[in-house]
Amino acid sequence: MHFFSDNATPVCPQVMAAMAAADQADHGYDGDQWSARLDSAFSALFDTQVRALWIATGTAANSIALATLCPPYGGVICHDEAHIVVDECGAPGFFTHGASLMTLPGDGAKLTPEAVSARLATIRPDVHQVPARVISITNATEYGRVYAPDEVAALGNIARTHGLGFHMDGARFANAVAHLGCAPADLTWRAGVDALSFGCVKNGGMIGEALLFFGPEADARATEAARWRKRSGHLFSKGRYLAAQILAMVEDDLWLTNARAANAAAQALAQAAPDRLLHRVEANELFIRLTAAEAATLRGQSFDFYDWGEGAARLVTNWSQDAASVAPLAAALRALDHG
Amino acid sequence: MHFFSDNATPVCPQVMAAMAAADQADHGYDGDQWSARLDSAFSALFDTQVRALWIATGTAANSIALATLCPPYGGVICHDEAHIVVDECGAPGFFTHGASLMTLPGDGAKLTPEAVSARLATIRPDVHQVPARVISITNATEYGRVYAPDEVAALGNIARTHGLGFHMDGARFANAVAHLGCAPADLTWRAGVDALSFGCVKNGGMIGEALLFFGPEADARATEAARWRKRSGHLFSKGRYLAAQILAMVEDDLWLTNARAANAAAQALAQAAPDRLLHRVEANELFIRLTAAEAATLRGQSFDFYDWGEGAARLVTNWSQDAASVAPLAAALRALDHG
Amino acid sequence: MHFFSDNATPVCPQVMAAMAAADQADHGYDGDQWSARLDSAFSALFDTQVRALWIATGTAANSIALATLCPPYGGVICHDEAHIVVDECGAPGFFTHGASLMTLPGDGAKLTPEAVSARLATIRPDVHQVPARVISITNATEYGRVYAPDEVAALGNIARTHGLGFHMDGARFANAVAHLGCAPADLTWRAGVDALSFGCVKNGGMIGEALLFFGPEADARATEAARWRKRSGHLFSKGRYLAAQILAMVEDDLWLTNARAANAAAQALAQAAPDRLLHRVEANELFIRLTAAEAATLRGQSFDFYDWGEGAARLVTNWSQDAASVAPLAAALRALDHG
Amino acid sequence: MHFFSDNATPVCPQVMAAMAAADQADHGYDGDQWSARLDSAFSALFDTQVRALWIATGTAANSIALATLCPPYGGVICHDEAHIVVDECGAPGFFTHGASLMTLPGDGAKLTPEAVSARLATIRPDVHQVPARVISITNATEYGRVYAPDEVAALGNIARTHGLGFHMDGARFANAVAHLGCAPADLTWRAGVDALSFGCVKNGGMIGEALLFFGPEADARATEAARWRKRSGHLFSKGRYLAAQILAMVEDDLWLTNARAANAAAQALAQAAPDRLLHRVEANELFIRLTAAEAATLRGQSFDFYDWGEGAARLVTNWSQDAASVAPLAAALRALDHG
Repeated sequence: MHFFSDNATPVCPQVMAAMAAADQADHGYDGDQWSARLDSAFSALFDTQVRALWIATGTAANSIALATLCPPYGGVICHDEAHIVVDECGAPGFFTHGASLMTLPGDGAKLTPEAVSARLATIRPDVHQVPARVISITNATEYGRVYAPDEVAALGNIARTHGLGFHMDGARFANAVAHLGCAPADLTWRAGVDALSFGCVKNGGMIGEALLFFGPEADARATEAARWRKRSGHLFSKGRYLAAQILAMVEDDLWLTNARAANAAAQALAQAAPDRLLHRVEANELFIRLTAAEAATLRGQSFDFYDWGEGAARLVTNWSQDAASVAPLAAALRALDHG
Repeated sequence: MHFFSDNATPVCPQVMAAMAAADQADHGYDGDQWSARLDSAFSALFDTQVRALWIATGTAANSIALATLCPPYGGVICHDEAHIVVDECGAPGFFTHGASLMTLPGDGAKLTPEAVSARLATIRPDVHQVPARVISITNATEYGRVYAPDEVAALGNIARTHGLGFHMDGARFANAVAHLGCAPADLTWRAGVDALSFGCVKNGGMIGEALLFFGPEADARATEAARWRKRSGHLFSKGRYLAAQILAMVEDDLWLTNARAANAAAQALAQAAPDRLLHRVEANELFIRLTAAEAATLRGQSFDFYDWGEGAARLVTNWSQDAASVAPLAAALRALDHG
Repeated sequence: MHFFSDNATPVCPQVMAAMAAADQADHGYDGDQWSARLDSAFSALFDTQVRALWIATGTAANSIALATLCPPYGGVICHDEAHIVVDECGAPGFFTHGASLMTLPGDGAKLTPEAVSARLATIRPDVHQVPARVISITNATEYGRVYAPDEVAALGNIARTHGLGFHMDGARFANAVAHLGCAPADLTWRAGVDALSFGCVKNGGMIGEALLFFGPEADARATEAARWRKRSGHLFSKGRYLAAQILAMVEDDLWLTNARAANAAAQALAQAAPDRLLHRVEANELFIRLTAAEAATLRGQSFDFYDWGEGAARLVTNWSQDAASVAPLAAALRALDHG
Repeated sequence: MHFFSDNATPVCPQVMAAMAAADQADHGYDGDQWSARLDSAFSALFDTQVRALWIATGTAANSIALATLCPPYGGVICHDEAHIVVDECGAPGFFTHGASLMTLPGDGAKLTPEAVSARLATIRPDVHQVPARVISITNATEYGRVYAPDEVAALGNIARTHGLGFHMDGARFANAVAHLGCAPADLTWRAGVDALSFGCVKNGGMIGEALLFFGPEADARATEAARWRKRSGHLFSKGRYLAAQILAMVEDDLWLTNARAANAAAQALAQAAPDRLLHRVEANELFIRLTAAEAATLRGQSFDFYDWGEGAARLVTNWSQDAASVAPLAAALRALDHG
């Protein structure tokens, strides 16, 4: 049983069906009937006027979002373990033409308002220093932690006060919303978020995430983002197959159904090993203490996962699992301690 | 019946089947079993050691190829109607960090050795001028014309003599090979080509082209290209669905079967309107003289296509057609003249 | 006697004196008293509110001007023999992050309104094509030809109508104004010019040109340009020595005095060889027919100059010359025909 | 008396004289007789074959050095208070096209081998992570601390072992050498340094630093750097005035004479306030504890300097001072404690 990544999972059946249904002639690029429905589908979901573009990957969605929010000579305040910092081979630097990532530490890969404010206070306004222009957070974070609406809003206030853009990497946004049970709007534009990378692939999609823009500048930014999408080779000839996936995710709450299943699986595992947890489990990732011998024991029982440095491991659950299906691993974890 | 683009066509059944067969858990990115087979599949097809990467789009494949061949201060000699010049929103400039496109005219969107040599002769070697570093051609060209192996080799000789890289945009490479009946090797590395954008989407694929590197520097360039692919947001989490498509195209000559069908359809139309042709028909595109009234007549019969400036039109055939299936349009064209 | 470039000339005495006068302690970068006077000095000269920055070189001034006027995905309409195209090693591509140079032919290296309008008409507004965003001209041109105010205004009208920025490379702006006898304002902002690279070095300066912004967006663009200047390593620690040079040029009409001298020298030579001229002589450059034997004859008399392709030569006069001082070359040219 | 920056100082007389001596006609750019002597002058100074280019500013020299050593997808290990991080408006990101600055803390703005090795150990070699490609240090550092030859060599060993380039920002290299009394070679290429930004302006020059390349790749890197210099607008038309300054600095040990004077002045001040020092004084900068009231007292006596955060100040001495000339400030500092 695979727990090394939600990327390893097959595509969920509803998404496959949606792609098959889109397998017909239509206009190329984003001129088709599916792409045309993205704005309205996300506007309904977020209870405001949203501009939405399909984008190949989360890395591209993050980078294009940042490119619309940050000039080359600007800076992006973010966590030092953010995906944009450690897992994108410098893609934000490529798309922004060299903007600086201004990294901060923080528990659970979460930024705090205090840390952000303190960092901003150190920047002189002269031309020698890189001015901060964006705050970027990940929700759920790289450690499976979730920012609640008021936590996002506290950062959003700082962004607004300092005239900064506010981006959210939502590769696991569905898991965050499923955990919180809040309205998507409360976690985003009502809290000051300007741009959201809305993840689909880790949540059951095949290829394609959505990049969403909120607020009065949404139109201008989406128009700019469409240029970047083409210019970076991300405007697929047959975009309808991406749009159809995203619509399938969004239109019947499949995104939440899938995320709830993955979250439930993670909770079942967390309850099986409460003393091993390195981070509170709020989404679909567990980071646990695990000796090399214990890891070998679990792998001997066909559970796959990544080591996470010395004496620790990362377990990722996914849409195709739930509490029941991960019971074997839960039992195996319990057996490590009590076996 | 659609003739406005080969992008409008559905995905061919074998490709859909291959994607369904790949719908199982495996490692992410290009760590899966399908991606692992690309090198050997293309090496077999091209009768030499090839390094192959799946890439989202033709624009990305072209740009990443150029980024591996050209420094930011270098130039790419290409046709002034090349796709990289007129239809990629400056993507080559983005990926190469500002390399110059050195454009030349030429009949049928083909470069001639004479024009290339003359252009090279004008460049001073001092630091004030941009040195040419790459020749890039499209085969079949933007006007559906085909370079034969000896024509490619003549340009390849110039490239070798001047120490330039040699790139081929093969969005319709299949149509070129189907027209020529030659070995793929003869049209590429044996003629000096270093990098080939091998098109799939226009030929029945859904998402994903292959970027191929030949020759002694293939390994180094592919390694570099893999960095660019990630850095530009093109490393898909579930790359197996792209690899499976490409393998389906290549492994049973589906790519040639599909291209032959499209070419045959184009020939059938060409024979129906020999006096209207603006360019010789060698692949799957026709550029014909057509008055506005004639265009309206054809559209009134449900034939869709793009105008191509004043008094002309472009008709593109595709893998799902053949001489028989386009007979209605052939008849309609004949009727314009003799009706 | 040197005629190969106005770069070869020593610095004129007034500029050297100004540098010596600035050789005292003051604040670094552009925080000094000389830099502080640039805006007002140029505002007086141009009879409007001007924002002015010293910049190291003409290449940098051109590129930073273009970077403020053109996004990375935009295009710059310019002459195919413009300095920004042929003599800057792709600097505009570097500073704009890959914007496209959209080159046009034209007599004497001058753009015509007809050619510009025709080019603009070919660009589709979709995301596949690079949108034109700037028109850039050189005055005096690379062939020593001069645009009159009404010619500039005709291009300025096109720029305004299409929402394009308008840049003038004025490496030899002084020579153009000296030839025309017009107000600097008439040749620039009154004709729609947004940004001017105001040349000093070829006209007697040592190091440093001025980059000027006109119009309602001047402030915003100058603020942006100051970022680019720093980011590109062009913010000198001791900027006062550049500012002092530029002020010396501008404040007592030294720029015009010097340019008139160079122009007069060129006219004297033109009158000596009227049948050899390849371009009308309006500034301080002559392009003349000259056989290899004739060139050797002149060089044998210690006249230095560059060949300009087969059977032609370029002669550049400078601020330290005048009609009298170039009389020996004038005589030598006459002697070639009548000797 | 100014202590806010060594940039505020006038140009030293020998440099002014050298510029005056170069005020004659010669070839443009770096085709003149002074530029031609740079390689040999620095080769003599460094006791090895050196390639040397004049570059406008330290920011440009650092950035061009990094651009020759680091691909866009690579990283530069450096101190988190390095000039390239905090005072260049992101210039390294501009010149490298988005390479990452991998910052580390360290006492006195010095990198330690332990910290560098630990950082390198965290980087996975896959394409998702930015690979380190360069180590960059500043000598003397931003806090006026000096790396001794063995400290540089320890970092050089790490660089060689990991295949990294090694750059030294030597804006105050003269002060470091003057402090150490070592051979320039011992502090650079013998310790593994590949590229050195050799500062002149803070040490009595007007405009222009030298960028030096050492070792077997020096030629290739200098050739590449010459492209970058032109492409970034840093190839001055009249480069002879920069080359002459640098030669004046180097050829009669003026660089060391000047640095010794500045260092002596700093030592005199350090001895006057030993209990206030925040960093050991090794070059020409003092960082001292100073209350707002004390700062006001000193400023009331016409001593100018920058505050350095709350309760601290930075004092910079320069070539035009020595122990005797700064005696008034030394006395004033003593008076603060004992007055």
